[in-house]
Amino acid sequence: MPRIANIESALYRIPLPVTLSDSTHGEIAAFELITCRIRDADGAEGTGYTYTVGRNGGATADILKREIPPLVDGREADDTEAVWHHVWWGLHYGGRGGPAVLALSALDIALWDLKARRAKLPLYRLLGGFDAHVPCYAGGIDLDLSVEALLKQTDGNLAKGFRAIKMKVGRPDLKSDVTRVRAMRDHLGEGFPLMADANMKWTVEEAIRAARAFVPYDLTWLEEPIIPDDVAGHARIMQAGGVPIAAGENLRSLWEFKNYIVSGAVSYPEPDVTNCGGVSAFMKIARLAEAFNLPVTSHGAHDITVHLLAACPNRSYLEAHGFGLDKYIEHPLVLDDGKALAPGRPGHGISFDWKGLAKLSP
Amino acid sequence: MPRIANIESALYRIPLPVTLSDSTHGEIAAFELITCRIRDADGAEGTGYTYTVGRNGGATADILKREIPPLVDGREADDTEAVWHHVWWGLHYGGRGGPAVLALSALDIALWDLKARRAKLPLYRLLGGFDAHVPCYAGGIDLDLSVEALLKQTDGNLAKGFRAIKMKVGRPDLKSDVTRVRAMRDHLGEGFPLMADANMKWTVEEAIRAARAFVPYDLTWLEEPIIPDDVAGHARIMQAGGVPIAAGENLRSLWEFKNYIVSGAVSYPEPDVTNCGGVSAFMKIARLAEAFNLPVTSHGAHDITVHLLAACPNRSYLEAHGFGLDKYIEHPLVLDDGKALAPGRPGHGISFDWKGLAKLSP
Repeated sequence: MPRIANIESALYRIPLPVTLSDSTHGEIAAFELITCRIRDADGAEGTGYTYTVGRNGGATADILKREIPPLVDGREADDTEAVWHHVWWGLHYGGRGGPAVLALSALDIALWDLKARRAKLPLYRLLGGFDAHVPCYAGGIDLDLSVEALLKQTDGNLAKGFRAIKMKVGRPDLKSDVTRVRAMRDHLGEGFPLMADANMKWTVEEAIRAARAFVPYDLTWLEEPIIPDDVAGHARIMQAGGVPIAAGENLRSLWEFKNYIVSGAVSYPEPDVTNCGGVSAFMKIARLAEAFNLPVTSHGAHDITVHLLAACPNRSYLEAHGFGLDKYIEHPLVLDDGKALAPGRPGHGISFDWKGLAKLSP
Repeated sequence: MPRIANIESALYRIPLPVTLSDSTHGEIAAFELITCRIRDADGAEGTGYTYTVGRNGGATADILKREIPPLVDGREADDTEAVWHHVWWGLHYGGRGGPAVLALSALDIALWDLKARRAKLPLYRLLGGFDAHVPCYAGGIDLDLSVEALLKQTDGNLAKGFRAIKMKVGRPDLKSDVTRVRAMRDHLGEGFPLMADANMKWTVEEAIRAARAFVPYDLTWLEEPIIPDDVAGHARIMQAGGVPIAAGENLRSLWEFKNYIVSGAVSYPEPDVTNCGGVSAFMKIARLAEAFNLPVTSHGAHDITVHLLAACPNRSYLEAHGFGLDKYIEHPLVLDDGKALAPGRPGHGISFDWKGLAKLSP
């Protein structure tokens, strides 16, 4: 049994090639990457990470550096449930969400990577392999692009091999959203999977109005129409809007997903492994969705998440967007006929360019 | 209109005179205090703070130092709703709970203190004075005390002027809890307000069993019987247990309280001004409780909270426990015939001993 011997964490600020924008976060010029590397007593290693869209990274790194090492030093690295439970409760007061869960997620990912590497298995097979080929979509952050630029970006994504695409909605006027969605549908053709993401822009009634306006354009889903705190509001949009709803990138625990799922408030639960509590929590959420006959999609961190969805019979699309991180990863995501391929290397198979990252300390 | 000109924050580690313990947090040897001082362009000042039971203070301080100043510099200090909204959304990704809300709470408290001091009003009158005399209970953290020590501590609290007392429950066996509750009831006599706090120790069925066992001892409320994530579980305990339920110290937003209140999951909502989002959020929660014909109680930070409950017709008991902070405050809480007195000084009226605190930097 390998005991945790060392934890090393770091904060980096990853500049984006172009400034992104959506309806809620404003301009995003850089992502924060917070890494967690674990070494066990035998010298085996595991790597985890989490990220933010520009703030709270310092707090997350502080928790990984100050609070987590004394909570986990010397514990059995393979006892991922015990470690998760101990850290969740150790950080509970002032935790239970926010940077504390981001930090725990990075730790949990590192422990699962370590476990899989020791077992000489790719992570998806350790978790229960289903299919290494995972349907995948390109997640564009493109709210402020002109229609021309949007279609040009789309052609770029098609050329990269994507066979499903998500666009942003939530512009100041619904008419402009409808124009853009119609342009995308016309451009992509009937039946091409197209999603739209509102990033919590609307009220419930605005969201219902928007969903109904989008019905002719056959969206696979409409994502985050309203604030994540309003479960009943999501349920009403599901009932009245006529478009499937995806939500979850801003939910921070298995229990928050449970509330959505039992309330009929979500069609496509969408956990992010780097902020929902790590691999341990993501897999529970995915299995809970399966029990409720729901597909599961994902947010962020596609290089890790491809393994998790490859272990789920109910996997829907993997979200792919690299937010400038691909440059610092040895083996970026491989697409094969529109599907992402879970790599066969042990663990999650990500190797960071630590020297390159070192230049990005804030 | 005063613009925010300067924010200063700091982290302190406040040693406790005796190590405390409850059913979930284990031994608590020190609290972390995180302060936030705001100065406006006219030189007027406001002070806020938040605290933890020992972890996540570094992360909270990091957010107050790194993220919040660029979000609020130059904004109108009196526009507390606008500032709250801007910071909540600025910190939303990786926020929406945890250290991000603790930091926002400290900021919001400082802004309300500043506003009241500029208006030359005690905070409770600025918020809408109802009654400066607020019913109050002594919150004991005493799970591991012997029955003798528990009763001795109780005599001390009676001597200090308390006319309502809360004790901890959630020991390894229910029989021992019942023995202690019975001893307290016998000691205090019929009709004396007695509460019990389980700190999330139980499952739903264990909580119902415990509540029923406590029925003969006439508890004012049973607090936090289960994890805060299980709203439906609280509702079941309310229905089946036969004892009023208090909960809220681990809820981090108006919306989380809304879910409890509309679900019939809580008898005594119990926000903590230092972690629910500050004065702005506490008052909304208290007014929401009023709309649902519920009393509102409180957790922690009694010196600030006495003002908030003094502004509420539906105020129930204020929780008083100083966790070693009284030593560093010029005017500790005043009790008058078992009631806490909201001071008439402008603002919340707390003056910290900054020189004494300076020695407690971690």
